[in-house]
Amino acid sequence: MKTATIVGGGVIGGGWAARFLLNGWDVRVFDPDPEAERKMGEVLDNARRAMPGMSDTALPEEGALSFHDSLSEAVEGAAWIQESVPERLELKQKVYQSLQEHCDPAAVIGSSTSGFKPSELQAGAARPEQIVVTHPFNPVYLLPLIEVVPSDRNTPEFVGRVKEILAGLGMYPLHVRKEIDAHIADRFLEAVWREALWLVKDGIATTEEIDEAIRMGFGIRWAQMGLFDTYRVAGGEAGMKHFMAQFGPALQWPWTRLMDVPEFNDELVDLIAGQSDAQSGHLDIRDMERIRDDNLVAMMRALKGQDWGAGALMNAHDARLAAGAGMVRQAADIADPSQPIVTVRRAVPVDWLDYNGHMNESRYLQAFSDASDRLMEIIGCDQDYIATGGSYFTAETHIRNIDEARLGARIEVRTRVLAAEGKKMHIWHEMHCADRLLATGEQVLIHVSLETRRPSPPSDAIASNLAMIAQAQSALPMPEGVGRHVGAPR
Amino acid sequence: MKTATIVGGGVIGGGWAARFLLNGWDVRVFDPDPEAERKMGEVLDNARRAMPGMSDTALPEEGALSFHDSLSEAVEGAAWIQESVPERLELKQKVYQSLQEHCDPAAVIGSSTSGFKPSELQAGAARPEQIVVTHPFNPVYLLPLIEVVPSDRNTPEFVGRVKEILAGLGMYPLHVRKEIDAHIADRFLEAVWREALWLVKDGIATTEEIDEAIRMGFGIRWAQMGLFDTYRVAGGEAGMKHFMAQFGPALQWPWTRLMDVPEFNDELVDLIAGQSDAQSGHLDIRDMERIRDDNLVAMMRALKGQDWGAGALMNAHDARLAAGAGMVRQAADIADPSQPIVTVRRAVPVDWLDYNGHMNESRYLQAFSDASDRLMEIIGCDQDYIATGGSYFTAETHIRNIDEARLGARIEVRTRVLAAEGKKMHIWHEMHCADRLLATGEQVLIHVSLETRRPSPPSDAIASNLAMIAQAQSALPMPEGVGRHVGAPR
Repeated sequence: MKTATIVGGGVIGGGWAARFLLNGWDVRVFDPDPEAERKMGEVLDNARRAMPGMSDTALPEEGALSFHDSLSEAVEGAAWIQESVPERLELKQKVYQSLQEHCDPAAVIGSSTSGFKPSELQAGAARPEQIVVTHPFNPVYLLPLIEVVPSDRNTPEFVGRVKEILAGLGMYPLHVRKEIDAHIADRFLEAVWREALWLVKDGIATTEEIDEAIRMGFGIRWAQMGLFDTYRVAGGEAGMKHFMAQFGPALQWPWTRLMDVPEFNDELVDLIAGQSDAQSGHLDIRDMERIRDDNLVAMMRALKGQDWGAGALMNAHDARLAAGAGMVRQAADIADPSQPIVTVRRAVPVDWLDYNGHMNESRYLQAFSDASDRLMEIIGCDQDYIATGGSYFTAETHIRNIDEARLGARIEVRTRVLAAEGKKMHIWHEMHCADRLLATGEQVLIHVSLETRRPSPPSDAIASNLAMIAQAQSALPMPEGVGRHVGAPR
Repeated sequence: MKTATIVGGGVIGGGWAARFLLNGWDVRVFDPDPEAERKMGEVLDNARRAMPGMSDTALPEEGALSFHDSLSEAVEGAAWIQESVPERLELKQKVYQSLQEHCDPAAVIGSSTSGFKPSELQAGAARPEQIVVTHPFNPVYLLPLIEVVPSDRNTPEFVGRVKEILAGLGMYPLHVRKEIDAHIADRFLEAVWREALWLVKDGIATTEEIDEAIRMGFGIRWAQMGLFDTYRVAGGEAGMKHFMAQFGPALQWPWTRLMDVPEFNDELVDLIAGQSDAQSGHLDIRDMERIRDDNLVAMMRALKGQDWGAGALMNAHDARLAAGAGMVRQAADIADPSQPIVTVRRAVPVDWLDYNGHMNESRYLQAFSDASDRLMEIIGCDQDYIATGGSYFTAETHIRNIDEARLGARIEVRTRVLAAEGKKMHIWHEMHCADRLLATGEQVLIHVSLETRRPSPPSDAIASNLAMIAQAQSALPMPEGVGRHVGAPR
């Protein structure tokens, strides 16, 4: 079992502790703050909640966590020592001096510094070659980026080992080849921070307006392609040089208050266009457009699932669209209750596809589940009712996959109530794409108390709406396939 | 049916056309470029591919698209005219002059300008009050942000109507209250662009390293909370003022080449901390941390589904974890083929939960589908085999939901081959969480040709691996529940 020592707790140290622990390392913590254990416990609670499910496979068994009053005890035998003390150079140098008296000379001493150069950290150290900047981003247990900034005192073998260990924690070690104040990412954060302070100070925008300007637009783009690839795609067929020619002149315009600009000449254009070609020249620009769009749709739909930011906006828009399209929302609105109810009408999104190039089987059930949710809403088991402590849970489902659906296919689910007695409802979904039947779904749902998680009777209003629909639809012929078991001959 | 006129095609004009068309508006295009129709067709192809599935409800029927040689014909009767011609002020002013001779005085004339102020656009116009900046972000058919920048010549009623129409297109109209060069969002883009040019020019980082520094770290954060809320959460219990005190001094440090900084005094700190309180003071900081984490996990998992950026990194890490944890990948590795095979071992992620606070029914099937994928890989139907044109499609599934699973629950799926004859395999999954049985899944999968999409025999190697497993497991008792139909008494 490998051991990591965290020197300096807090949000960043706690995040490092979580990365190591949840990837199976033992972790020792040294922090003189009497609140350190409580603070780190809170970060670990968050990490244990969010991090394991992020992977599509199980993480290793968690390592052992211990807190130590003595630095010598904490660092003894550790393979990695991560320093996250406050941003004061002399303090950091003093910490390295103490811990180098006790630690393994082969251990990595990584610093979480946002701003200092490795050569500054190493100055006066007994063994400068084991100290390196490993700058993480909050929350450290989720974001992959780690800036690895060595000086010429660190050997290539050492840097290689540092990167390998970080990759083993699921992180992305970005090797910063030339040391510079604030490394790379924080230079952008600082530029944006400075511009934001101007905008607020000058009364142009509030903090909230600035956050919306970022997260409703370019923030989503940057999360998947960064700056240059985003512009490469925007430039389209004409290419990166054309894009730069178009926006080059803006460097002389007052488009920011930050006016120390590099000279915009052919040399700079060639340098950037050349690097962009090396980076993404292997991708056709049309392919890149589609990759970008698929990423944006998938991320915005992820935010939709969390009902946050751009996703919350989209959910509100969907509700207006559904109402405008005459989707039924309550029993009284059903035009002809003797017919199946249209409960879903939508297009197949990119995140519903699988490696076979069609809608994945689990998304057939997602559409049927959405259909059941809509039926529940119609009979009165809506968000308000659920807030009172009652809901329906699905007990079983039988799906027959009859035909495929491709990206963008417009699907419709029509739902029947076959029977409704007491706590139980027996329903039948058919999924169509134009005149093709794609799938059938037979389900039994049970009304439950959300407090006891046990079966309980629904409200009278729900029972009566269900009975009304079941009765009205009872004249329809029984659908082909009801009561089938898996593998029964068709 | 409402009509929008697009003046100036290209990527931005095309994106606007798609927004209107796919939301049910008729669209007329005026662009003297002989290539305009082809270029716009390409943008519309992309939009029709990505946009409809983004919603969880059907979009309205698409409007009619037409191209016009005459500006007067194009704008007649249009409710919205969107100008997206090149960024030359005198050109834009000339365009407004021509179109105001023919358009409805009540129409909105929106400009896609990145930089000009509305008062500059309006100068010399016959009816300045109908011209306003409506600045979109590429791709216009996906990103919600629109900066609406009026001058004092536009009435509040007019601005209200503009915002209402944009909201009706699913967009987020950000009202920029004071006009300024480059509005709000592009000021940040410009600041980052300037810093990036320095970093490349000074040889600190390549375009690719810069893109990774953004998309592996703060880009993902910004997509959901922007700048200030991100820092508010990072500041934790100590609050926004504390955060600013910590990073205030950096304004004087050479953390960027952009050194025109505002004076950092109490007044500025109070202004920003006060606005941040107004924006998010209603949320507890612990709740915000969890909201942030849930958003990050959901977005990164979305990128995982696309195998791109941070998601591609995580997929590679998952593969290493699974191999390290001894998950079986091929038939020869099965230690004891007479027992069910562990095909899934993972934690329940946040994006698998529903409004009942537990794993949604469709994710039970997703876990079973992942289990079937793993079984396919084990018997030899892996990515290499699928590339040769054979695969398995699921024909039917019966799921019994027996118990609930909460966020983070470690689940395991064990899979049996009940029968395998020719094109058909009959399998049985059981999902466990520690000693609790959560669900069973009975499935029939059919081997198909990916060319004809029809049943076809699997390779001999696959058939023989399947037969080996089925034979070895045949001594196990038949699972309780096999062959059940929905609603059968337990």
